[in-house]
Amino acid sequence: MSMIVNRRDLEFQLYEVLGIDSLFKSTRYASFDRELIDEMFNAAETLAEEVFLPFADQLDANEPRFENGTAVCIPEVKAALDAYAESGFFAAGFDADIGGLQMPYVAQAAMNGMFSAANGPVYGFVMLTTAAANMLNAFGSDEQKALYLPPMIEGRWFGTMCLSETQAGSSLSDIRTRAQPRGDGAYNITGTKMWISGGENNICENIVHMVLAKLTDASPGVKGISLFIVPKLRVDESGNVGEHNHIVLAGLNHKMGQRGIPNTLLNFGESGDCIGHLVGKPHEGLRYMFHMMNEARIAIGQGAVMSGLAGYLFSLDYAQHRPQGRHPQNKNPESPQIPIIEHADVRRMLLAQKASVEGGQALIFYCCLLVDQLKIETDSNERQRMHLLLELLTPIAKSWPSEFCLEANKLAIQVLGGYGYTHDYPVERFYRDNRLNPIHEGSHGIQGIDLLGRKVAMLNGEAFDVLLEEIRQTIASAGDEFAKEKQALQDALGALKTATAAALACTDISQRLANATLYLDACGHIVVAWLWLRQAVTASAKGSGIAADDAFYAGKQKAARYFFRYELPKVFATLDLIATLDRTVMDMAVPEFIGG
Amino acid sequence: MSMIVNRRDLEFQLYEVLGIDSLFKSTRYASFDRELIDEMFNAAETLAEEVFLPFADQLDANEPRFENGTAVCIPEVKAALDAYAESGFFAAGFDADIGGLQMPYVAQAAMNGMFSAANGPVYGFVMLTTAAANMLNAFGSDEQKALYLPPMIEGRWFGTMCLSETQAGSSLSDIRTRAQPRGDGAYNITGTKMWISGGENNICENIVHMVLAKLTDASPGVKGISLFIVPKLRVDESGNVGEHNHIVLAGLNHKMGQRGIPNTLLNFGESGDCIGHLVGKPHEGLRYMFHMMNEARIAIGQGAVMSGLAGYLFSLDYAQHRPQGRHPQNKNPESPQIPIIEHADVRRMLLAQKASVEGGQALIFYCCLLVDQLKIETDSNERQRMHLLLELLTPIAKSWPSEFCLEANKLAIQVLGGYGYTHDYPVERFYRDNRLNPIHEGSHGIQGIDLLGRKVAMLNGEAFDVLLEEIRQTIASAGDEFAKEKQALQDALGALKTATAAALACTDISQRLANATLYLDACGHIVVAWLWLRQAVTASAKGSGIAADDAFYAGKQKAARYFFRYELPKVFATLDLIATLDRTVMDMAVPEFIGG
Repeated sequence: MSMIVNRRDLEFQLYEVLGIDSLFKSTRYASFDRELIDEMFNAAETLAEEVFLPFADQLDANEPRFENGTAVCIPEVKAALDAYAESGFFAAGFDADIGGLQMPYVAQAAMNGMFSAANGPVYGFVMLTTAAANMLNAFGSDEQKALYLPPMIEGRWFGTMCLSETQAGSSLSDIRTRAQPRGDGAYNITGTKMWISGGENNICENIVHMVLAKLTDASPGVKGISLFIVPKLRVDESGNVGEHNHIVLAGLNHKMGQRGIPNTLLNFGESGDCIGHLVGKPHEGLRYMFHMMNEARIAIGQGAVMSGLAGYLFSLDYAQHRPQGRHPQNKNPESPQIPIIEHADVRRMLLAQKASVEGGQALIFYCCLLVDQLKIETDSNERQRMHLLLELLTPIAKSWPSEFCLEANKLAIQVLGGYGYTHDYPVERFYRDNRLNPIHEGSHGIQGIDLLGRKVAMLNGEAFDVLLEEIRQTIASAGDEFAKEKQALQDALGALKTATAAALACTDISQRLANATLYLDACGHIVVAWLWLRQAVTASAKGSGIAADDAFYAGKQKAARYFFRYELPKVFATLDLIATLDRTVMDMAVPEFIGG
Repeated sequence: MSMIVNRRDLEFQLYEVLGIDSLFKSTRYASFDRELIDEMFNAAETLAEEVFLPFADQLDANEPRFENGTAVCIPEVKAALDAYAESGFFAAGFDADIGGLQMPYVAQAAMNGMFSAANGPVYGFVMLTTAAANMLNAFGSDEQKALYLPPMIEGRWFGTMCLSETQAGSSLSDIRTRAQPRGDGAYNITGTKMWISGGENNICENIVHMVLAKLTDASPGVKGISLFIVPKLRVDESGNVGEHNHIVLAGLNHKMGQRGIPNTLLNFGESGDCIGHLVGKPHEGLRYMFHMMNEARIAIGQGAVMSGLAGYLFSLDYAQHRPQGRHPQNKNPESPQIPIIEHADVRRMLLAQKASVEGGQALIFYCCLLVDQLKIETDSNERQRMHLLLELLTPIAKSWPSEFCLEANKLAIQVLGGYGYTHDYPVERFYRDNRLNPIHEGSHGIQGIDLLGRKVAMLNGEAFDVLLEEIRQTIASAGDEFAKEKQALQDALGALKTATAAALACTDISQRLANATLYLDACGHIVVAWLWLRQAVTASAKGSGIAADDAFYAGKQKAARYFFRYELPKVFATLDLIATLDRTVMDMAVPEFIGG
């Protein structure tokens, strides 16, 4: 049993539920077919299993060290990333015209998920490099693209995202990094960036930092932010790497998880000129960042699903092999102990993990497919529908797995008991790793504000209506055997509509948003319930007669039932808080927390 | 602001809500009064703050090392425990006739909570020593007590609990450690014990292991288990410490949290005779252990509350001093940033922590007071009522804080954002430390089985009826201002009764217990809601006119409202699963988890 992927589930979700083979009919993805994708999955699984997975524990125990101004990772990291680059995986997602393979995003997410599950922090270097290259590709000049993209796509240069500063995390309008025109078209960058993953590593030939900074004439607030390419080593017109660009590693953050990738504090331009190159137009930096945010946020969600999956697979395997105790009705202490998966509570904890992990996976793949479809859809109405749906679902795709696949990791530890609490087993590492996901790339709270403060309200609620319509279609098409689930989902939609309307009618913006995070969780539960119903409907139609397949399809239907019985009912209490515009939180004055 | 205790809340919970001063009227506790207890609290707070707290981070980063067969802790651990012993705190809870101070258990829990919040792993040595000494005191012979208790009460010898083995954690009937009579009244102990906290440390003069083992003629199962005193160094008749007793440190477990106290694998009698002394009668060991279990399990719950409290206090302080962002209605980016406690979502996360931590504290103190009252109550009917209530509440006292104060720790990290994810701040440590509590001393699942499989059913549900009666009395006595809360609690009790009756009527014991863990959580929520109503009623009656007190009482009422609005409604969906004897979990066959 693989510890990093359930290939049968990938097959089911990608082809049987989502029908991603329809993408291959488009010109953009015509060079792909299922066979080719399977081959790439095979290669990825082998590399992830043989090269990424074996040192994940060791990497966690040996975080990068600060040596001579560099974040030094253990040598296995470079070896794994070199192997990844040599196999051409860095190129997978990029367009063919810039040297990429133009693989559909949804297939790419599935493929890279194996690396993420095998060794999340190492895959982090890839994710950041891809994100930076995507942004350059979308907004950079032809010269910039020609200089920086090829080595990034080949995996020789890595990328970072330099947004946050110590005093400006969620509040980007308060960044202080400055860009001063040099007179030659370039800029001198000065300032300090915090939480920069992958910064000043000792692995790659050069690092391309994508830096948010303010021009000296910028207006205050987010409108004054511009985006710059700031390489670690300067690059001449022919693409040759030259002298150091005065980016100094000021410190490493020591984290509870994700310990394999350095997280850095970087000083720009303190020791000498740090030259940056403006991307696109001045003062448009945040817009560019937001343009790329959808994919980045979906990628975070997928990372959270993969941590959840790794814990699920490990604890499922463990539960089948660890003997302990007997059935409650068995009073014979001399009978052999049974595998703990026989205990109802262990089975509950495994089923809960399956429901969260495969439900979260369905959410991520659904969003990824929207990204692909948006690239090939020509009908403008349909494009607008897809765009709205993706905008609405993005905060959920980022947040729901970050919250509920973390809970899955908590259960994986519980299945292993005391052993799960030790470093001898990886489940506590997954729990520590996954705890980052509700924090970075827009915290859980920020996503709630995005959803309730912006997304459900935009265009008079048009995006929200598109989502409701999609869910209603699934309800309408599901057979009578799903009568209970259909009714439950219908009821939940009713409660969601009532709550949403009440929130949007509230003119006090603080009060409207007081419980936005809980609204986000409840919306996520409804969306995931909907996607579970889709999976159950597909599985129910499939009765194959092959035992293993029958078991798979039966499992899908039971996990869906679990989600509808155990999880979906939770949303009603939450939505009632939103609908009544509960002020409990607002009314709590600061001195009342402690008093006395 | 203290980072380890809210003294005002202690005052409120102990005196204003529980009225523990009534204990001082009894002969047993006559030497105590509030003034003396305050003085002891002052001394404890100073010692915990000045000696325990300062090295908690350092200790986490430097777990005990395996050196020459000993678990070597950093020297600060011994210094702190020596100071604790010198101040006489080890003696606090023991009876006066054996050299103790005979302090009420409830006051002792509050006092020791400060050490636990300041440095949980170091306090762990105390907790284990106290538990072992209590067991000896209850079941040991006079000679055993005379030999072993004085040095334990003085804090010179420590204790451990040796129950689990690698193949027998939750399933104690499967232990393999054996005791062979030596012919001189003592026994040779042979076997291996796993998960032994505090084993073979380098701190104390001797270690008194309380070991479960089977006599050679024992019957199979839990009825064949006996309890032995097995000292690290043999003790002669005068109490002098002599030669090594052949207990060998076979390994250290490296844990995700609670890293300051060694957790060990111990071999008994492999290198030579390991002499053990039978406690009480043969084959009664498990009964003795269970007799002590109530206090031990309450102590675990209190430890979980203290981890939660430490995270709450830290994140509350941080939120008042960390500026970030502006109110959503403020569009001026040049206005100063506000402390994050001004943001509704941060306030929600703090209020949620307060509700869990102070609610959990109320639960623990309520149980502790029952322990004290049982020691002084003379009316046998009343004693029986208290006994039943304590039996019923114990699995909840152990589990509810372990689950929900861990969630509080998760929120404390979230309040700090990226900083909370680093070792520079203690909140991630509290989260790692607290993750142990749902695992040890009877896992969360085991507690659920204890509650639904045993406690609510015992004596035809008499204990359950006593609890319902207590809750109904609170509902009856609360004023009309609490009409909503009274109704909500009444409704919850109705659902609880229905669910409990349905479960008890189910003759398939596996099916009855299939969702026992969720039943445990729901029961806990109802109990904590009841205790919050008690706090709110008390606070509402207190309007003092002193601003700080008014704020304190207002905060109590709002936290109660929070619990009733945000938490209690969750129980209905859960209790419905129990009432309908949901089989989803039972019906999931092993091959269906993965399939394919």
